[in-house]
Amino acid sequence: MPEALSLQPSSSPSEVQAIAKAAGRAAAAYAAVSGPDRARFLDRIAERLEELGDELLQTAHRETSLPLPRLQGERGRTCGQLRTFAELIRSETWRDVRIDPSDRDRKPLPKPDLRRTQVPLGPVAVFGASNFPLAFSVPGGDTASALAAGCPVVVKAHPAHPETSRLAADAILGAVADCGMPEGTFGVVWGGRETGEALVTDPNIYAVGFTGSLRGGRALFDLAARRERPIPVFAEMGSVNPVFAMPGAIAARAETLAKGYADSLTLGVGQFCTNPGVLIGLDGPEFEALLRAVAEHLQAATPGTMLYEAIHEAYVAGVQARREHPQLVAHCGGEGTAAALFSVSAKEFLAHPTLQEELFGPSAVAVRCQDADEMRAVADALEGQLTATVHFEPDDTEAVRTLLPSLVRMAGRVVANGFPTGVEVSPAMQHGGPYPATTDSRTTSVGTAAILRFVRPVAFQDFPLELLPEELRAE
Amino acid sequence: MPEALSLQPSSSPSEVQAIAKAAGRAAAAYAAVSGPDRARFLDRIAERLEELGDELLQTAHRETSLPLPRLQGERGRTCGQLRTFAELIRSETWRDVRIDPSDRDRKPLPKPDLRRTQVPLGPVAVFGASNFPLAFSVPGGDTASALAAGCPVVVKAHPAHPETSRLAADAILGAVADCGMPEGTFGVVWGGRETGEALVTDPNIYAVGFTGSLRGGRALFDLAARRERPIPVFAEMGSVNPVFAMPGAIAARAETLAKGYADSLTLGVGQFCTNPGVLIGLDGPEFEALLRAVAEHLQAATPGTMLYEAIHEAYVAGVQARREHPQLVAHCGGEGTAAALFSVSAKEFLAHPTLQEELFGPSAVAVRCQDADEMRAVADALEGQLTATVHFEPDDTEAVRTLLPSLVRMAGRVVANGFPTGVEVSPAMQHGGPYPATTDSRTTSVGTAAILRFVRPVAFQDFPLELLPEELRAE
Repeated sequence: MPEALSLQPSSSPSEVQAIAKAAGRAAAAYAAVSGPDRARFLDRIAERLEELGDELLQTAHRETSLPLPRLQGERGRTCGQLRTFAELIRSETWRDVRIDPSDRDRKPLPKPDLRRTQVPLGPVAVFGASNFPLAFSVPGGDTASALAAGCPVVVKAHPAHPETSRLAADAILGAVADCGMPEGTFGVVWGGRETGEALVTDPNIYAVGFTGSLRGGRALFDLAARRERPIPVFAEMGSVNPVFAMPGAIAARAETLAKGYADSLTLGVGQFCTNPGVLIGLDGPEFEALLRAVAEHLQAATPGTMLYEAIHEAYVAGVQARREHPQLVAHCGGEGTAAALFSVSAKEFLAHPTLQEELFGPSAVAVRCQDADEMRAVADALEGQLTATVHFEPDDTEAVRTLLPSLVRMAGRVVANGFPTGVEVSPAMQHGGPYPATTDSRTTSVGTAAILRFVRPVAFQDFPLELLPEELRAE
Repeated sequence: MPEALSLQPSSSPSEVQAIAKAAGRAAAAYAAVSGPDRARFLDRIAERLEELGDELLQTAHRETSLPLPRLQGERGRTCGQLRTFAELIRSETWRDVRIDPSDRDRKPLPKPDLRRTQVPLGPVAVFGASNFPLAFSVPGGDTASALAAGCPVVVKAHPAHPETSRLAADAILGAVADCGMPEGTFGVVWGGRETGEALVTDPNIYAVGFTGSLRGGRALFDLAARRERPIPVFAEMGSVNPVFAMPGAIAARAETLAKGYADSLTLGVGQFCTNPGVLIGLDGPEFEALLRAVAEHLQAATPGTMLYEAIHEAYVAGVQARREHPQLVAHCGGEGTAAALFSVSAKEFLAHPTLQEELFGPSAVAVRCQDADEMRAVADALEGQLTATVHFEPDDTEAVRTLLPSLVRMAGRVVANGFPTGVEVSPAMQHGGPYPATTDSRTTSVGTAAILRFVRPVAFQDFPLELLPEELRAE
């Protein structure tokens, strides 16, 4: 993490410890806050963020180079997430309540009354991402879902946008005060790797939410697994999000497909974890024409400014390495942050697993397959992904039916005739996937199901109704 | 693990690899088997186990020393579990299906159609337990829930009951053949630590179910976390299951309480993971009288035979160590497998965390507290537990209301006016708890929710109905 970028001094180990301890002390009181009261708190955070007005957008723009309209959209999404979780927790139905009535006459033993609900895990450490200064940072999805679940949150702000983080943190702390939430319900720590390590190993922390690189996420996962009391790490580490273009789709709408693919690849200068970095098709003149059309669109796109220098340098170096790769054919790209397209035979793609690695930015590798079997072999060789996409027309249906189990095996979301960028915040969203896309494929970091990461079930046996949590008090 | 006990030769590393590979090859085909067909397969396993008749019970009795009536009950439970999961998967409602309809007119971007279901993780390694040769071993709960979820299973049979394991494994393999399930859907490997390590590190394995000791479970967890592709480990590692006796309960029914506690402690020679190993009350003549009554019941109980020699030796050594502990008062026990009761002041209990450690067998530590605050301090100092129990009468209600958050914090199941032994197999059961009771407090290993350990969500975006899994095909 580029600590030098941050003007904010790093939190000392004792500061990290004190903030985690305050979160620990707040845990029981915050867990006892009612759903409607937690909902008002989340709504108030959204209001406070909106009240910051242009200051928040301009600060984020200055720190991230992201265009203002994009940041306006991201603020809308961030506040929308908070309000979505607020709405979710106004009723207790999200807790998967299960009630087994007693049967006192059962033989040989009477059956007890069992009632199961979900309780918060305890304080959660959240690691802000570089590419979403709001929606996946201090006031982002992990913070919203953990607070919704009833867990205090300590965020490690991303060093690339400290002022934005400070504004957002103050908004949340203001909402804590406005709504009378327990002191310690929210905290923020500053710094790089050492700060993060101190936070993840702190005994007051019970879970970790992270969005970032494979290297960073895996390091936190390893650290958390080695604790005396291991804790879960929900790390979303990105992927290459393969797009399969079936022959019928290329024949019917090559131009739309090419433009859609190029738009998705260059959206936000390719700095999305759902960026479609691999395009797979059947070798032949139709696929070659598609690649030519994609390259034309990429060349016509205006290169954007990347988030910060280290990302820019890594992208330039990565594109250069691809240009020098003996098996890759360069179709376009190579200057600065210009979008780049390469292609390779499936045989070589399968022989060189490093070609599967994510290059953060608007660069893609197209894979030419000899036939449907080889296309499926490529699908089966791909590692865990956030998304897998397939473009097809009715005459491709049987081929897709054969390919689909391989897509489901690799990905958390499979997309038909669309593009993976753009992640809905809704109940059916799954933003996750098998390793190395995430460290826990059984969870999502976007959508209302994200709240389930931060709770655990508890069964109450034979308790009188008056002592039960409200959601378990059915007669 | 006592390898010397087993007459069954250990599986070689290449045998383990071959069996895991067969499971890997079966994964896609088995995942595609319909719910009703998987249900018939589970039912057929239960039938096959029952068809083994007395042979299975006598073999288990010979290998484990468990009494025949207990084994008969355990067989009933094992077949009941299989049939409960069969019933669960006849419909697809367990998959937490979520459907977000599209909104093509939404601005600025149309909303896609999103449909989320759960798919199997892949082959699961199951480690049989020593104390339940059927219900938590080869044909046990982990096997039933993983097969129900659509995952092939490879069991490492516990070396303490190889013949029982062989009979059960043959029954399952017979059911695989009877029902035409894919070859490799079920496999079994034999041996001790090395066999287990080979299985957990095999690239074809995607999750681990384990019931046993903290040391064993943690070793598998560490191994799985260090894999290139880490996999989840669901290890249930037992606990001391504290029982809090409130003053009103002691005043109203000391004798029933004493008998109930002694019965629960000595059930199955104390060899249950829900064995109530710690009894907490307010110091004074009433609590002393309760302890005397418990000791009398324990002394009147006939000592049983423990599962095998290593467990017996560990119990005898553990009781001896407690007798020699300077802060413990011995109330009864000390000869062979006789039940043992010790007591200690809360102050000393809090000062000596090793007194919290589980001693497998019918031995308990009673903790004398000076007041309700100290009782709560003891509750707050207890590590993660499978269960926490409180006995109370109406006049204790406010004290229980104050204590209850501490019980919920520590345990997966809280029990009112009962005992923790006896774990229902039902939808609302939670058999799990914070570390060190388990390695994943967000899951259960008993009850129908156990199936959720072995699946992950997948969202389908904009797919035509005909290509969707059946449960997602709603218009």
